[in-house]
Amino acid sequence: MKVLIAVDSFKGSLTSIECSEAIKEGIQAVSKNAEILSVPLADGGEGTVEALVHSTRGIFVEKEVTGPLGAKVHATYGILGTGHTAVIEVAAACGLPLVPEGERNPSITTTYGVGELILDAINRGCRDFVIGLGGSATNDAGVGMLQALGFSFQNKQQKEIGCGGGELTKIRTINTSRAHPALRECTFKVACDVNNPLHGLNGAAYIFGPQKGATSEMIKSLDQGLMHFAELVSSVLIKNIQQIEGAGAAGGLGAAFAGFLNGQLLSGIDLILNTLGMEAKIESVNIVITGEGKLDGQTSLGKAPLGVARLAAKRGIPVIALAGGVTKQASTLNELGITSYFSIVNEPMSLGEAMDPKVAYDNLKMTTAQLFRLIFAMKK
Amino acid sequence: MKVLIAVDSFKGSLTSIECSEAIKEGIQAVSKNAEILSVPLADGGEGTVEALVHSTRGIFVEKEVTGPLGAKVHATYGILGTGHTAVIEVAAACGLPLVPEGERNPSITTTYGVGELILDAINRGCRDFVIGLGGSATNDAGVGMLQALGFSFQNKQQKEIGCGGGELTKIRTINTSRAHPALRECTFKVACDVNNPLHGLNGAAYIFGPQKGATSEMIKSLDQGLMHFAELVSSVLIKNIQQIEGAGAAGGLGAAFAGFLNGQLLSGIDLILNTLGMEAKIESVNIVITGEGKLDGQTSLGKAPLGVARLAAKRGIPVIALAGGVTKQASTLNELGITSYFSIVNEPMSLGEAMDPKVAYDNLKMTTAQLFRLIFAMKK
Repeated sequence: MKVLIAVDSFKGSLTSIECSEAIKEGIQAVSKNAEILSVPLADGGEGTVEALVHSTRGIFVEKEVTGPLGAKVHATYGILGTGHTAVIEVAAACGLPLVPEGERNPSITTTYGVGELILDAINRGCRDFVIGLGGSATNDAGVGMLQALGFSFQNKQQKEIGCGGGELTKIRTINTSRAHPALRECTFKVACDVNNPLHGLNGAAYIFGPQKGATSEMIKSLDQGLMHFAELVSSVLIKNIQQIEGAGAAGGLGAAFAGFLNGQLLSGIDLILNTLGMEAKIESVNIVITGEGKLDGQTSLGKAPLGVARLAAKRGIPVIALAGGVTKQASTLNELGITSYFSIVNEPMSLGEAMDPKVAYDNLKMTTAQLFRLIFAMKK
Repeated sequence: MKVLIAVDSFKGSLTSIECSEAIKEGIQAVSKNAEILSVPLADGGEGTVEALVHSTRGIFVEKEVTGPLGAKVHATYGILGTGHTAVIEVAAACGLPLVPEGERNPSITTTYGVGELILDAINRGCRDFVIGLGGSATNDAGVGMLQALGFSFQNKQQKEIGCGGGELTKIRTINTSRAHPALRECTFKVACDVNNPLHGLNGAAYIFGPQKGATSEMIKSLDQGLMHFAELVSSVLIKNIQQIEGAGAAGGLGAAFAGFLNGQLLSGIDLILNTLGMEAKIESVNIVITGEGKLDGQTSLGKAPLGVARLAAKRGIPVIALAGGVTKQASTLNELGITSYFSIVNEPMSLGEAMDPKVAYDNLKMTTAQLFRLIFAMKK
């Protein structure tokens, strides 16, 4: 029997790699002969770099770059096993956790470090990029990143503008002529699971500003900056970045990738599954084990287990989904390709106890073992 | 596919009949064609009458009898579908719940009502008896029951002794000549899962007296009563009731059944499985679902799921055990015939929530449905 383990992280408890390991141990406790293919998943959010590097036997690169507040930070990105594709979570260079809570202020935070990571990867020969948006502390429309890559944004004194969303209104001219030449050969696939426009009441500042520390006054002015930027891009580049679905992701980084770098904004899990060549992998197995921390209605909105299930269902391959918790809404998953789903919780316990990494690991292993005992018994 | 549902109660949450129903609904949600044989289990304790009556399509009989304190109580027993076998839980006539907490006193409580239930069943044509010991409020060595059946126990004034364990020391003569004549045709199979002797430090009074309300002074005197009774029986009937394993069960009722009624003290679950003809039923099915409230080390000591599993394992039939909670010790069950075990808890929750009958019912149904989705998928 050939088994594919393609499981997301149990957020706050186990990484997708740890989950894969627990499931693998569970299967091996029942059968030493099962052929196990382990492909830890991610959905484009936190853990994407780790999962893709692990799954493709790639490498991690640590690089000192400009952090969101200007001070240097150590950021890690990945180069996949092929050597040609870099995977970057923007949060590594401009993420909210890099800014102490009292200092969160999207009018000054910059995405400059994201550009530096891209440059570093270009210098190492990468030309294809998988980008995870999400978790950024910024609202600068990706201008910082673009500046690092050689784009120029000048004020009326023809001086380069400074850092942060508060500077956007000052831009008078955009100069793309000195952008890094290799960018023309590069592709950017951007995992983006929000569809907010760049500005407006549903845009980056209004929707995501508050969680980044923006006051209501600041939100208004950030939104005006984004609007000004969109109008300028529209007249200079003849591109409408405002209406791109997901332009408002990561404080407007979505707009920068789409408008300046020909980036494609894609559903996170589809992008990841594609990058991992999941479809071809599923073709060769007898059963698929997937899962994530919680299986509920949200999962039905396109998260990892469902993406895997869709691919397997096309081929009639059974899919078991495991989770810390499965809500009543999970029953819809059965119609979407998940053969069966199970909670790994082995007895009544608090959420805290269930999420204890050792408890979760043991429960995941135990549940898997019991399921495979049944599977082998029924196969006889 | 033919499925046998043979599940114990989830104590404090669902009866074995409710559990069977939930599992049945879970299977039928997946397949309308599965042939389902539902045999609710019991282990000789609470719920035994209900389960056996249900499984054999028997009847319930309600009868007014003498309660443990002398006042009349309404007690229910069962007559199995065959019409020839009565099933009685002694607690129905002399159980601890029939005595208000402040009045618990095994020196005065009697088993008289148990004898009245037996008489009633004899009058209705029953000659075979399945008796569930356990939960009694008494320590009278079954003398009350025997008196109701016509046995006589007299003091030195040649007067019949009164009720309760405190009277035993007064017995001087035992007269069996006026016992109900039908008793000679009767068989008594007694579910008894303790092996305590009648008296002594490991006997009825010392081990079970405290939970029945006996003070330490009272325990000593109750124990002396039991010893006196055993010696008298030994000299009059030439029977050593002291050493019978389980003689001390239910305040010495075990001794009375064994010594006076030729009763066989048997493991509760073996007796129940035998009464239900479980072995023959298992022979014809493809898979067995069993379970109880909690699967842990204790289960390994001969409880219901394990009894079922043993019978199924002999024939290589897969057994799934479902429970509210499965502890780490449950893993030993895999070596004892249980193919796989699962907790039905669907997410972290308190014990109280998990035991809420509606929650438990839904979770049992959901887990069963998910398992059968997998089973059918693997059978393809």
